[in-house]
Amino acid sequence: MSHSPSVERWGVHEIKLAGPADGNPFAEVRLSARYQYRNRIVEAEGFYDGDGVYRVRFMPDAVGPWRFTTVSNVDELDGVSGGFEATPPGAGNHGPVRAVATGFAYADGTPYLPFGTTCYHWTHDMDEARERETLRTLAVSPFNKVRMCVLPTGRMKPPEVPFAGEDPHGLDKTRFNPVFFRHLEARVADLRDLGVEADVILFHPYDEGLRGIEDMGRDTDHAYLRYVIARLAAYRNVWWSAANEYDFNPAKTVADWDDILRTIQRLDPYEHLRSIHNGTRMYEVATLYDFTKPWVTHQSIQHWDATPTDAWLRACQKPVVIDEIAYEGDAGKRWGNITGAELVERFWEGMARGGYVGHGEVLSGGPGRPWLGNGGTLLGESPARIAFLRTIMEERRDGTILRYLGRRQPAQVTVELPPERGYKVELIDTWNMTITPVDRGHRGRVRVGLPRRPYLALRMTRT
Amino acid sequence: MSHSPSVERWGVHEIKLAGPADGNPFAEVRLSARYQYRNRIVEAEGFYDGDGVYRVRFMPDAVGPWRFTTVSNVDELDGVSGGFEATPPGAGNHGPVRAVATGFAYADGTPYLPFGTTCYHWTHDMDEARERETLRTLAVSPFNKVRMCVLPTGRMKPPEVPFAGEDPHGLDKTRFNPVFFRHLEARVADLRDLGVEADVILFHPYDEGLRGIEDMGRDTDHAYLRYVIARLAAYRNVWWSAANEYDFNPAKTVADWDDILRTIQRLDPYEHLRSIHNGTRMYEVATLYDFTKPWVTHQSIQHWDATPTDAWLRACQKPVVIDEIAYEGDAGKRWGNITGAELVERFWEGMARGGYVGHGEVLSGGPGRPWLGNGGTLLGESPARIAFLRTIMEERRDGTILRYLGRRQPAQVTVELPPERGYKVELIDTWNMTITPVDRGHRGRVRVGLPRRPYLALRMTRT
Repeated sequence: MSHSPSVERWGVHEIKLAGPADGNPFAEVRLSARYQYRNRIVEAEGFYDGDGVYRVRFMPDAVGPWRFTTVSNVDELDGVSGGFEATPPGAGNHGPVRAVATGFAYADGTPYLPFGTTCYHWTHDMDEARERETLRTLAVSPFNKVRMCVLPTGRMKPPEVPFAGEDPHGLDKTRFNPVFFRHLEARVADLRDLGVEADVILFHPYDEGLRGIEDMGRDTDHAYLRYVIARLAAYRNVWWSAANEYDFNPAKTVADWDDILRTIQRLDPYEHLRSIHNGTRMYEVATLYDFTKPWVTHQSIQHWDATPTDAWLRACQKPVVIDEIAYEGDAGKRWGNITGAELVERFWEGMARGGYVGHGEVLSGGPGRPWLGNGGTLLGESPARIAFLRTIMEERRDGTILRYLGRRQPAQVTVELPPERGYKVELIDTWNMTITPVDRGHRGRVRVGLPRRPYLALRMTRT
Repeated sequence: MSHSPSVERWGVHEIKLAGPADGNPFAEVRLSARYQYRNRIVEAEGFYDGDGVYRVRFMPDAVGPWRFTTVSNVDELDGVSGGFEATPPGAGNHGPVRAVATGFAYADGTPYLPFGTTCYHWTHDMDEARERETLRTLAVSPFNKVRMCVLPTGRMKPPEVPFAGEDPHGLDKTRFNPVFFRHLEARVADLRDLGVEADVILFHPYDEGLRGIEDMGRDTDHAYLRYVIARLAAYRNVWWSAANEYDFNPAKTVADWDDILRTIQRLDPYEHLRSIHNGTRMYEVATLYDFTKPWVTHQSIQHWDATPTDAWLRACQKPVVIDEIAYEGDAGKRWGNITGAELVERFWEGMARGGYVGHGEVLSGGPGRPWLGNGGTLLGESPARIAFLRTIMEERRDGTILRYLGRRQPAQVTVELPPERGYKVELIDTWNMTITPVDRGHRGRVRVGLPRRPYLALRMTRT
């Protein structure tokens, strides 16, 4: 046995053990570790990492001494114990993100405003140059969350897949492929180090019948969840998205998804954020999951329009994240060919209503395949404007009033300011990214004259 | 008695009679005329026009000899008979507009595509210069329908109102004001002569309690309808809109509106188009009237979004006219401050879905009050683009395929053309009003590369 002698709060503690390699260790060996801090015990699932190596990973949530003891149905893995010191978190480590009312905050209380993007398969090619490019792009982008899939899609021919055996037709879904997962978790760690949340999509309906992963049966689904969670849950930047477009999978019912979400909840000792993302025939009403169910932490939505955000928040007091609202692009599909201006409009509309909107890009003309599937470089016009919006949202303080005018162009607007304080009023051009002082020292009812153009906002700040 | 010796088909035949001026002729004298053409009899209501003058108006729908005999409860008005010749219609006279499936056509079979605008009170000021300006504006505009109110709104101080007595507090709603109506019908005739339909709004909820016209009681409502219809129904360009924003009138129930629409149907011998227009809290689902009711000829809708047109047409196989979809303007109200580009986008979206969209303008900066209320001059950017759209819609033939791309900007689109014919493909820029040939001689599946900008359409025409 070896293990990390010390780890920072919300870092990854790992125990490494030697054990049996015969039979099917993935299915036959059960391993976990009970971690104790003072009078509190947290149990973390372990996993088989191939070649007779077993590991348990754990994310300590408190600074100070921790002890652990392993539990296994195999003697040599059972009852192994040790201790380590959790040190204060390093710079940029605020812990995992939690839902707080209809917003989010890191575990240390720092507010977190999701500005997500999507690169479904940026890790599957195992193309190191492309992955580094993706990480460099993210580092200078406004995006602090990435939706990404564990499972490949039907048409891909990735060098490694999550399951053992011959891809695609000879897979053994009772065994996993540690090479695939080591690579995946290294990329999750890279995102963590950039301050980017990994919104990990566990199932999707894009298999086209090739690998049979849409309908593996309940036991295999559970084994898969157990393995993924054992490997990834200790990374503080992980979110669980039970599925992309869950309702496009005809093999699973809502009861199946309930069971999957409850299984995630049971297996993950850290209560990472959990949701499930709907498909929708665009321009029809979305088939949303019932987000009031207690095993869901936030509302992960696909819908082309942000204006129902008010209704979604009234129906369910959990954060609204419209992860897909159509993408900036020039693809043939409706979801992938709105203009940058239109996507920015939808970001502002959603955020003005108290929700959060996600980005994606499917523009042709770059050196590789589009960002949405494979990462790489961003070509669009929206990221700069989303960065501008992010700055404005993060600068917002209690008492700051933002009013977004969208496609409307009133000659003047009347703003009712609390009469007891003076306010500075600024005109924001959300597309041209300018902030122009209108006046300062306003109180009470203020009339502001506006230029005749769309995509304006007003910001009122206490002086 | 005097009467028109001849009148063109779908023109106005008028009988003038002398009768009692004492008492309340509006309430006490009943007058109608039975018009006979061959073996067919049509009865038209007459009306009291003040100063002991009674009139009956009638719109003959067939060329040839017509006979009439009056019917009255007053001896001197009863049994008066005569005849006249209906001549073929003059240039530009195609008869009244009818609903045909989910579209419209004039009575002579000429297709009619409504490109409506709204000037609610352009006649109420009786400002001749302004009215002439409005008519000149309409004459050079793409608009061939105007929504206009009979009743004034609460805050107006018009020189004449529809009722007798002292305006606003001393009105006698059992008597009408012929001066008001003579003026109104002269403007309806002006519109007719320009080829513009008058979508006459009979009730509205904008009285602010001043004249009590939102809750006059059933009998007074009926007398008002009888009088308006007797005066106006013979004008072939009249449409009946039972109300604007009917659901904003708390004094009337849906059953009341049913009764009003059925009363209009009973009193109007020509079956002019009949509908009723909803209010809506914008950005909530509109409270539409049930347009499947047999006394409604088309779906008159207020909604900010044209995309439900498909659903409305599925639910009810009658033409969809989104008379209010928000207006080009810079007003403080949400319904009155979208950009010209946004309004044009909504026009195309609605028409691409098989509906019709209405225009309105509330831009400040002109010499008078905005177009929406009072007519005058148009200042906006949308009318030129709506004219361009109208030309394209009117040029469309059987087999012409239009595909509107809206805010989407696909790098290419695939069009499936019937393989047995050659097609010319053109790229339409709906905002810049250009039509660019892409190629000619296409057959079957065609891929068309597109520039990266919004508001494009493709037109495929048989060669």
